[in-house]
Amino acid sequence: MRIELVCTGSELLAGKINTNAAYIGSKLAAVGLELSSVVDVGDKKQDLLQEFKRAFERSNIIITTGGLGPTFDDITVETAAECLSLEIYSDEKVLKSIKEYFAKRAVAVMPKVNERQANIIKGAKVLENRFGTAPGQMLYFEFKCGDKKFRKTLFLLPGPPSEMKPMFEENVEPFLKSYSVGIRKNTTLRVFGISESAVVEKIKPVMEEAKFGDGKSVEFGILANDSIVDVKFSVSGKDELFVDETVSKLKFEINNVLEDNVFGYDNDTLASVVGCFLLKKNKTVSFAESCTGGKIAAAITDIAGSSLYFKNSVVAYSNESKIKLLGVKEETLIKFGAVSGETAKEMAEGILKFSGGDYALSTTGIAGPGGATKEKPVGLVYVGFADKKKTESFKFNFNGSREGIRERAVNTVLDLLRRKLIIQFVKKRS
Amino acid sequence: MRIELVCTGSELLAGKINTNAAYIGSKLAAVGLELSSVVDVGDKKQDLLQEFKRAFERSNIIITTGGLGPTFDDITVETAAECLSLEIYSDEKVLKSIKEYFAKRAVAVMPKVNERQANIIKGAKVLENRFGTAPGQMLYFEFKCGDKKFRKTLFLLPGPPSEMKPMFEENVEPFLKSYSVGIRKNTTLRVFGISESAVVEKIKPVMEEAKFGDGKSVEFGILANDSIVDVKFSVSGKDELFVDETVSKLKFEINNVLEDNVFGYDNDTLASVVGCFLLKKNKTVSFAESCTGGKIAAAITDIAGSSLYFKNSVVAYSNESKIKLLGVKEETLIKFGAVSGETAKEMAEGILKFSGGDYALSTTGIAGPGGATKEKPVGLVYVGFADKKKTESFKFNFNGSREGIRERAVNTVLDLLRRKLIIQFVKKRS
Repeated sequence: MRIELVCTGSELLAGKINTNAAYIGSKLAAVGLELSSVVDVGDKKQDLLQEFKRAFERSNIIITTGGLGPTFDDITVETAAECLSLEIYSDEKVLKSIKEYFAKRAVAVMPKVNERQANIIKGAKVLENRFGTAPGQMLYFEFKCGDKKFRKTLFLLPGPPSEMKPMFEENVEPFLKSYSVGIRKNTTLRVFGISESAVVEKIKPVMEEAKFGDGKSVEFGILANDSIVDVKFSVSGKDELFVDETVSKLKFEINNVLEDNVFGYDNDTLASVVGCFLLKKNKTVSFAESCTGGKIAAAITDIAGSSLYFKNSVVAYSNESKIKLLGVKEETLIKFGAVSGETAKEMAEGILKFSGGDYALSTTGIAGPGGATKEKPVGLVYVGFADKKKTESFKFNFNGSREGIRERAVNTVLDLLRRKLIIQFVKKRS
Repeated sequence: MRIELVCTGSELLAGKINTNAAYIGSKLAAVGLELSSVVDVGDKKQDLLQEFKRAFERSNIIITTGGLGPTFDDITVETAAECLSLEIYSDEKVLKSIKEYFAKRAVAVMPKVNERQANIIKGAKVLENRFGTAPGQMLYFEFKCGDKKFRKTLFLLPGPPSEMKPMFEENVEPFLKSYSVGIRKNTTLRVFGISESAVVEKIKPVMEEAKFGDGKSVEFGILANDSIVDVKFSVSGKDELFVDETVSKLKFEINNVLEDNVFGYDNDTLASVVGCFLLKKNKTVSFAESCTGGKIAAAITDIAGSSLYFKNSVVAYSNESKIKLLGVKEETLIKFGAVSGETAKEMAEGILKFSGGDYALSTTGIAGPGGATKEKPVGLVYVGFADKKKTESFKFNFNGSREGIRERAVNTVLDLLRRKLIIQFVKKRS
């Protein structure tokens, strides 16, 4: 079965990041299905017609996002109808609910442009939009290919993620689940601390052995994204118990060769894993950030419930802030500089003392593009770590852009904390 | 001319966000060109062959990203070669440079899997990869379509953005610039504070008038992304002066109807615009963040040079931190709660006093999914603002997910500061 996604919107061809494709891909993967392809196409009618025609021909389920808005460049409904030689009508009930949407927001009269959003393809089911004015549509249709007719399904979803996601979850996901035949399970092991090549060399024997065996099929994939390497495998077969056993065995074996470098599975992030550890052990953490500028705190607080283990964070960019807010000694800054192991240590100690928590980590470095000297190049980052017993500092040299260096530093700090927690709580017991 | 991007990698179909497409799209737009389509396709040979064949047939310039790595699922080079019936050879110079790359990183022996990365399509030019082991390739080829032969260009680029971007800038961008015939200029006006529908209603007369006139062609597009609305237009024509005049006139007219809601152009962000204002006026800002958890500081420090106007930020999640780090009164927290205008004000006053800067803003709210009460629902956010003269608080009710609410709160704070700066420095003069 072919499931295809067509994302419309000229902005997707001119610099806008397409997050809908990632969202829908991950939702499908979660129910053991996969997208066969994603196409981004502009708002020009001819381009859209061409892509819709191809998708309707070759795929069984076609999902589109975008082009349902009120403006002149929203042409998904009319183009899909044209492609299928179906008519469009203005749905009274939809029109009424759009008017109510405006009324609720204290806009007495619906802008005239929004009328278009009540246009529905004949035979389509209307999918309610709880977070915007554009309704979605679901259509069963028959497509002729040579002499044969094929029954297919089309979903038209809005483009804004905040409207698309709930509509997908309420309408498309239950539909897809009914299609998920046989058993197929996807697993991702998330790895930090060794290179992509090293991961491949280490897991090669596991992969080679896994290919033998009956009644199942295993596929592997490796993906490096900056400093995080994802080892993905999918196991399919007819017997769920056997598939589950194979998944467990592979997880165990890959963990065995990659050791502590595996930090989590599937949707785990370094921040969520660290959060789990802290929560379980009833410990708290604080940060003092210079070059990461608040990104560590942002990552930690992305996790709902982080208030239970996250105390606080001070973003101290200037020397003055480091002295005033964190108690870094002026002489340390003069003697060693702001970007030094000594400053990193004092920053960590300062925030630990201030917050009264269990752990504190700090960053100070040169994210670039400016600020480098001969001794201190762009990418030099010091990380400080303090708990009630001791303070340490670690030196790193990262490559890449300002954005890349900052991202890397955030991951490095979170991973450092993770490894400290493993040593304290996991290894001690064994 | 058709320029097409094919992004390979099963991860793009299973939840990974494709940032390369956005980057390449924006680069093309900057030189007045545009992508005709983007296709994401998995690492299966048959799928890849099908997409490559279609792209080679219908497009003049084909750019691929991904599949140049050392692992078994990296099959871009062999598949492109097969599709074009060309041979592959192992390039000695490339092999040597990969070995050197490992040596530099203190890995004496290159892992054997990396040998594959020296495989080059016969006739292709090797594009150096300064940030990784996978070289890129550029190939002129002829493709037969019916009786005619067409001369086309293929670029194979690596998938990791940190490797792809510099290779694109050094090799693909200069090549594309030579193709940019005629004059075409793209402009984006970035808008915050009014809805997409309201923007459309307001600019309609401007759009209608712009369509008349000779010697130029104007296209409009509107894109809403959560709370930011982008008004995009592209003007093309033969006479650069005339095109420039049209761009200026349209910018002026759209600004005129959308007023202060236009916060910037093209690549401006709320953080960069606020940064420019502060820098020019030699003023500084600090933040006290609760529900935004460091995201305001992260946005501000994403801008290189922000150390000149950003003093510091305190992420105070707990009541204890609000009291200890920001001097919020315990009685305020008891009487009004942590999520209240009073607490927001005291947070802003606290960080202003502490930092000694010119402006301070604070956030306190319920990002969800937990933490709501009947009186204080998810999405309720208070923003505090303090300068040397006065302190104010503002109440907001945002819709959406935890992520959406936090993002919205960050934009709202930055926009609030922007409007304050406009009143103080721009409007005062006039």
